[in-house]
Amino acid sequence: MPTPLATLRTSLAELSDLATIQQNIHWDHQVVMPPRGASLRAEQLATMERVLHERATAPELGTLLARAASEVEGRDEGDDDAAIVRVAQRDYDKAVRVPADLRAGLARAGALGHTAWLEARARGDWSIFAPHLEGILELKRRYVDCFPEVDEPYDALLDDYEPHMRSSQVRALFAELKAGLVPLVRAIGERAGPDDGSLMHAAGAFPRARQEALVRSVVERVGFDPDGWRLDVAVHPFALGLGTRDIRITTRYDEDYLGMALYGALHETGHGLYEEGSAPSLERTTLAGGVSLGVHESQSRLWENNVGRSRPFMDFLLPRLREAFPERFGAVDGDALYRAVNVVAPSLIRVEADEVTYGLHIIIRFELEQEMLAGTIAIDDLPDAWNARYHEYLGVEVPDLLHGVLQDVHWSEGILGYFPTYQLGNVIAAQLAARAHTDLDGFDALVAAGDFAPLLAWLREHVHRGGRKLPPVETIERAIGGPLDVNVFLDYLRAKFGPIYGLEPGALG
Amino acid sequence: MPTPLATLRTSLAELSDLATIQQNIHWDHQVVMPPRGASLRAEQLATMERVLHERATAPELGTLLARAASEVEGRDEGDDDAAIVRVAQRDYDKAVRVPADLRAGLARAGALGHTAWLEARARGDWSIFAPHLEGILELKRRYVDCFPEVDEPYDALLDDYEPHMRSSQVRALFAELKAGLVPLVRAIGERAGPDDGSLMHAAGAFPRARQEALVRSVVERVGFDPDGWRLDVAVHPFALGLGTRDIRITTRYDEDYLGMALYGALHETGHGLYEEGSAPSLERTTLAGGVSLGVHESQSRLWENNVGRSRPFMDFLLPRLREAFPERFGAVDGDALYRAVNVVAPSLIRVEADEVTYGLHIIIRFELEQEMLAGTIAIDDLPDAWNARYHEYLGVEVPDLLHGVLQDVHWSEGILGYFPTYQLGNVIAAQLAARAHTDLDGFDALVAAGDFAPLLAWLREHVHRGGRKLPPVETIERAIGGPLDVNVFLDYLRAKFGPIYGLEPGALG
Repeated sequence: MPTPLATLRTSLAELSDLATIQQNIHWDHQVVMPPRGASLRAEQLATMERVLHERATAPELGTLLARAASEVEGRDEGDDDAAIVRVAQRDYDKAVRVPADLRAGLARAGALGHTAWLEARARGDWSIFAPHLEGILELKRRYVDCFPEVDEPYDALLDDYEPHMRSSQVRALFAELKAGLVPLVRAIGERAGPDDGSLMHAAGAFPRARQEALVRSVVERVGFDPDGWRLDVAVHPFALGLGTRDIRITTRYDEDYLGMALYGALHETGHGLYEEGSAPSLERTTLAGGVSLGVHESQSRLWENNVGRSRPFMDFLLPRLREAFPERFGAVDGDALYRAVNVVAPSLIRVEADEVTYGLHIIIRFELEQEMLAGTIAIDDLPDAWNARYHEYLGVEVPDLLHGVLQDVHWSEGILGYFPTYQLGNVIAAQLAARAHTDLDGFDALVAAGDFAPLLAWLREHVHRGGRKLPPVETIERAIGGPLDVNVFLDYLRAKFGPIYGLEPGALG
Repeated sequence: MPTPLATLRTSLAELSDLATIQQNIHWDHQVVMPPRGASLRAEQLATMERVLHERATAPELGTLLARAASEVEGRDEGDDDAAIVRVAQRDYDKAVRVPADLRAGLARAGALGHTAWLEARARGDWSIFAPHLEGILELKRRYVDCFPEVDEPYDALLDDYEPHMRSSQVRALFAELKAGLVPLVRAIGERAGPDDGSLMHAAGAFPRARQEALVRSVVERVGFDPDGWRLDVAVHPFALGLGTRDIRITTRYDEDYLGMALYGALHETGHGLYEEGSAPSLERTTLAGGVSLGVHESQSRLWENNVGRSRPFMDFLLPRLREAFPERFGAVDGDALYRAVNVVAPSLIRVEADEVTYGLHIIIRFELEQEMLAGTIAIDDLPDAWNARYHEYLGVEVPDLLHGVLQDVHWSEGILGYFPTYQLGNVIAAQLAARAHTDLDGFDALVAAGDFAPLLAWLREHVHRGGRKLPPVETIERAIGGPLDVNVFLDYLRAKFGPIYGLEPGALG
């Protein structure tokens, strides 16, 4: 007779297999499915979701967890089995709280909301989407009611993306962040000089095939393994791990703009490396993979920005750019390239924002989400509130809904509480990069030489290996040797962009 | 409250979704998965199989079927719901007969057998594979014991691939077939003239990209819809339908031989059209898709051979070949092309066999499978028995195991009873083509003009639409207006290859 723990591990292994299959179907949907397959695919995804949910909430799983818990009692905190039981118990407790009809209602509202969002965008008409958002909020409030122990409603939503994190912690971090970012953005805005970014932009200058070869040569140096990874094209790029030995990243190509594919691929490579890095002992347990969306985003942003937009990286990148596009980069030096990939300018669209202004886009969404959930802002007033805040924080005027409140897909699909994790990722990335810089001798020289193995090994050891064994903040605090601190991120921005924009230290807030 | 029938339909829709997902994972495995993903993929496939089997044999499904049966009692035979209940009951009865441990044992033996088969091939050593085949046969005999009502053991195996078909029927058909084929093969062998097949063969003459463009232009005329189909590359080409609106075919390219990709793709297009053609009312029921492997093969062979290797098809094909490979086909006429794609020569490898000799490859396997199952041939003697029969039926000498008994993967994976369906497909294809020829005005002119829509519409109506509603033989008998008859196939071969090889009518057996 297998022990309860062994039976639990088998059951979780099957759950993990099914979750991987669901991811595989998702990949197929986004990357290769012919368009006419869409309607049946929706049914398949819904069925898979039901099967997974059934298994994740099966009463036998609850019984098994209780019996396995006594089996691992007294084991060391770092023990795999103890962590498996602890995390699986938390997953189970959360899953069983939400009635099946509410879950189905949210799925349906998200599907209809997405369609309405597309139509509202096409017609530029908020009133098409507004009632859907009202309905989604109503369901989200019912969802929050399933977790009466939270300090405040938003906590219940945030926990789905950033487990254990409280809204009050995010508010405190973001208040400091805003206080630092607003004057920095203003100071840079006053100094904005010639647009070096034009190096990366030019009509038809970047043929697709040459971009793809360049992207591959870069990500293979970072860690992309052709025997275990895929690089494909997707309209909305993403990365996922089908286990740790089948990593799939996507990017998109714009023949007028090189930054899209190159930095997009570097970003997704960071996600991919994290998925790949879980310890082999965690394979087919529910502990493999990323511990939270914030930590996941820290891995993508670290490679994209803290490494990929650093001055030393230009020394690695420039010879490759010259080889791929000699007519464009033959006469360019590293400093000019560095400025070109680090243009700061307040703008309207989050996904195109630079490192400095990005946080303000997130803070606006985080504030509005809390107000929507609390009912202190009317859905009809949301577009105006959005525009007013963009004026206040970023100094830009929103011309229409597409460049304003209808730009992101998240709310339409019922995803609320997700946005803060993007900026948490930026903050964590800065702290990890600072710590790795201290720990690794000759960090800058390694990056300049394209020798990324030491940094990857450092991330493997301190962040990737553990998967979901420890809670996210604990994972990060151990890696950086202290608490989350937005000042490290702000200091990083000041130290980097002060010289680029010739700012006086006093102007940096 | 939904009725039992409505609940059954929901349950079968989920089963159908999961089966589609399993197919999707299979496609991913064969077409896009990076090699390092293989070991975890095996676990995912095994888990998916267990989940499907659990649902297919759930006692609640049995109860539901019984209750739904009384709900559809008295309905017309052609009624969808009546057919759904009838076919699902048969599927369920078969599934619950086989104990889970036997099913798991067969899966394990098939996986190990496949590995041993690869090793035996690499080393040219039968003794590596023989004990695995013994073990598989032992499990197959236990499988047969689960169905004590069959007339003879082989019936239980055959039914998994060709439902309702009896071994005695196949034996009778194949006896007539062999009597007709052996003298025909011999007569052609005596007349074999210059090798016109060399038109299709030449080192490096067929660059991959030009082949692919040609293949696409041909299959799109036949029915490949770029919005609902995919064409990819696979080492072992296959086709599958993820529902009726996402059809995936594969082929492989040999730059020295044009026939591989072109006729392979036509073959898979035939399978794809069948998967696509189930009536919309059958979508997400377990009645959608092919009714048997024999009928499936009839669809692939009809397009590959009865259409694709016919004289009228050459008039459609030749201009396309000239455009793709002007240096090679510029001076070729339709008669030469016709001879080039219709070379008959006894050979060692089934998958490379021509239309005439193919049936003899199948008959040899069918005979040996029955003898193995009955224990009238020792596994150690199998290679010699194989070689003796190739000498006797085809007049060829087998030089080694790779060109002999180890050429096919089927037995190594525990697949016995499958081979006859290939040749049943050829027989059915000939009868369907003959009937369509009668029913459709100007059949040859339509084919010559590349107007395949009338034939496809005919197949849709008579074969595809019904999916699994009627048993296979009934499906076919209604389409052709009479019983299966190998003489139609033999007459087709004589009428076609007699003139090509200048045979006297008396020499045709």
